[in-house]
Amino acid sequence: MSDASVTIAVDVMGGDDAPSVVLGGVRQALATDPSLHVLLVGPADVVSPESSERVTPVVATQVIAMGEHPANAVRTKKDSSIVVGCRLVKEGRADGFFSAGSTGACMAAATLGMGRITGVSRPAIATVIPGAARPSVLVDIGANADVRPDTLVQFGLMGRAYAQVVLDVAEPRVALLNIGEEPTKGSALAQEAHVLLRDHVRGFVGNVEGRDIPAGTVDVVVTDGFTGNVALKVLEGLAVTLFAQIKGVLMATPLTKIAAMAIVPGLRRLKDRIDPDTYGGAPLLGVNGVCIIGHGSSNERAVANGIGVAARAVRGGLVTRIAEGIAAQPFQE
Amino acid sequence: MSDASVTIAVDVMGGDDAPSVVLGGVRQALATDPSLHVLLVGPADVVSPESSERVTPVVATQVIAMGEHPANAVRTKKDSSIVVGCRLVKEGRADGFFSAGSTGACMAAATLGMGRITGVSRPAIATVIPGAARPSVLVDIGANADVRPDTLVQFGLMGRAYAQVVLDVAEPRVALLNIGEEPTKGSALAQEAHVLLRDHVRGFVGNVEGRDIPAGTVDVVVTDGFTGNVALKVLEGLAVTLFAQIKGVLMATPLTKIAAMAIVPGLRRLKDRIDPDTYGGAPLLGVNGVCIIGHGSSNERAVANGIGVAARAVRGGLVTRIAEGIAAQPFQE
Repeated sequence: MSDASVTIAVDVMGGDDAPSVVLGGVRQALATDPSLHVLLVGPADVVSPESSERVTPVVATQVIAMGEHPANAVRTKKDSSIVVGCRLVKEGRADGFFSAGSTGACMAAATLGMGRITGVSRPAIATVIPGAARPSVLVDIGANADVRPDTLVQFGLMGRAYAQVVLDVAEPRVALLNIGEEPTKGSALAQEAHVLLRDHVRGFVGNVEGRDIPAGTVDVVVTDGFTGNVALKVLEGLAVTLFAQIKGVLMATPLTKIAAMAIVPGLRRLKDRIDPDTYGGAPLLGVNGVCIIGHGSSNERAVANGIGVAARAVRGGLVTRIAEGIAAQPFQE
Repeated sequence: MSDASVTIAVDVMGGDDAPSVVLGGVRQALATDPSLHVLLVGPADVVSPESSERVTPVVATQVIAMGEHPANAVRTKKDSSIVVGCRLVKEGRADGFFSAGSTGACMAAATLGMGRITGVSRPAIATVIPGAARPSVLVDIGANADVRPDTLVQFGLMGRAYAQVVLDVAEPRVALLNIGEEPTKGSALAQEAHVLLRDHVRGFVGNVEGRDIPAGTVDVVVTDGFTGNVALKVLEGLAVTLFAQIKGVLMATPLTKIAAMAIVPGLRRLKDRIDPDTYGGAPLLGVNGVCIIGHGSSNERAVANGIGVAARAVRGGLVTRIAEGIAAQPFQE
């Protein structure tokens, strides 16, 4: 393999089925990427036995649970796996961090621990949506419920950098999520943001509507964290609901059960293709380091993909790309 | 039939396939509901031949096209089918109005022609979402991109009245669309609205998230027109995309094609069940009369269901219910 050597710190205590699922995911990731090294962060009894040529245990004695108040937990639990993992990136011992733990705690720990990239007003969380025509980056999916128009310009630039790195698109097409195609449509925020995005984001192609997210008509969809979170959860919710109902159709009668045997493999491939886990977690964009956050319900494959995406973001120079984009526009914090 | 006699004005020129699809839909509606009378509004050569015991032609010489600027068109085309249809309700000649024409023009014509219900600050557009557990009313789906917290209280009350009338739920459960369950989550708008909804909307059960819309966990989901429009279009877009991809799976090989014969009837029933046309169009809530707006792409069944919903809203006393709800809360325009 010609891939550059990369070290990712992994929170072994993140996720509903930690640490076993995380350990399984780490093994998968190591098997896939021979140039990957892992700093395994967590309790001594969990991480120490995993020590190997490419796995270095780093003991963290505390754990932040899913329900804890993020900022308080990060402030008080300085030896938690999330805080220690972010610190390893800050100190240059790791190139990136992956956790399937509390999104809020990861955000707080990364923002405090790694700091923001110069000029970034608000870090944002993105995710890759598997659209019918192509995957696209949706940003923000929940970090910032209220934003200013110029914040959306920064989201556009950060989303663009992420699409270049993880979707391998040299010149991503960036669009604003709105409720009509014309620039004058939508909320005051959307109308003002449209003008700013047009003037300051390379590859801006205008507005898209909700239906364009599942269709996959552009590479980056920019929106505030409120709208983005609702859109993402509608999408995930309908996919879950529909596949459950389709299963009901397939299992309805002895005849449909026989027919299902021919159909199920194709449906399973379709389900895998639209499964968000395929793209491995949500990046926290705008912090001065690579930080990928996985679903709490991540399975081994999702953990492996999340670690893989972190390595890819490091190798693709995500932080430098974002810093260059932010430096070139007029809205500096 | 014991149903009360109802007269609905129908815009024969509304929709992509007008007038033929509208005429077909009117016939279906009349066949389904023996107490229904229709005022067929449009050009003389289209409406006059349709005259019968239960169909009264009303000539309107002008047509508002889908692309026209709504307010301008309504102001200048006073003899258009949309403006005339709304006037028939205002004058008491019709009990309600249905059009599959321009949503913006219907809104402008109904608001100007019928006026607002006393105390209503902003009329809103709702729609029924076919959730997995139960259908629910989503309001607003695009009439108001920017709203105040107290506007969402009015949306909650209007959505509640609509759910009582068309979903036959005596005590609808009303929720606020947000990005977390706790009252303190979400945008400033959502946080303030949560408190007001709790204090002023009977049946308010708290926040729901995007995934609750396809799941169908409550009877009424309240949101601003920006978020609601995005959510609706994500939902419609993913349903279209997924069924197209499933069709690809079924048609992939000779074997899957044979198996598909057993599966397709069940899938078709599922598709029909989640088809928004089942619930027939979107009501404009808050105007002083019943006004139901259909998709531009409505087929005959959708038109028939839209007319049926208009009749149902009239018989259920929708306008009176909304007026009572609005009068009982402190936010009066």
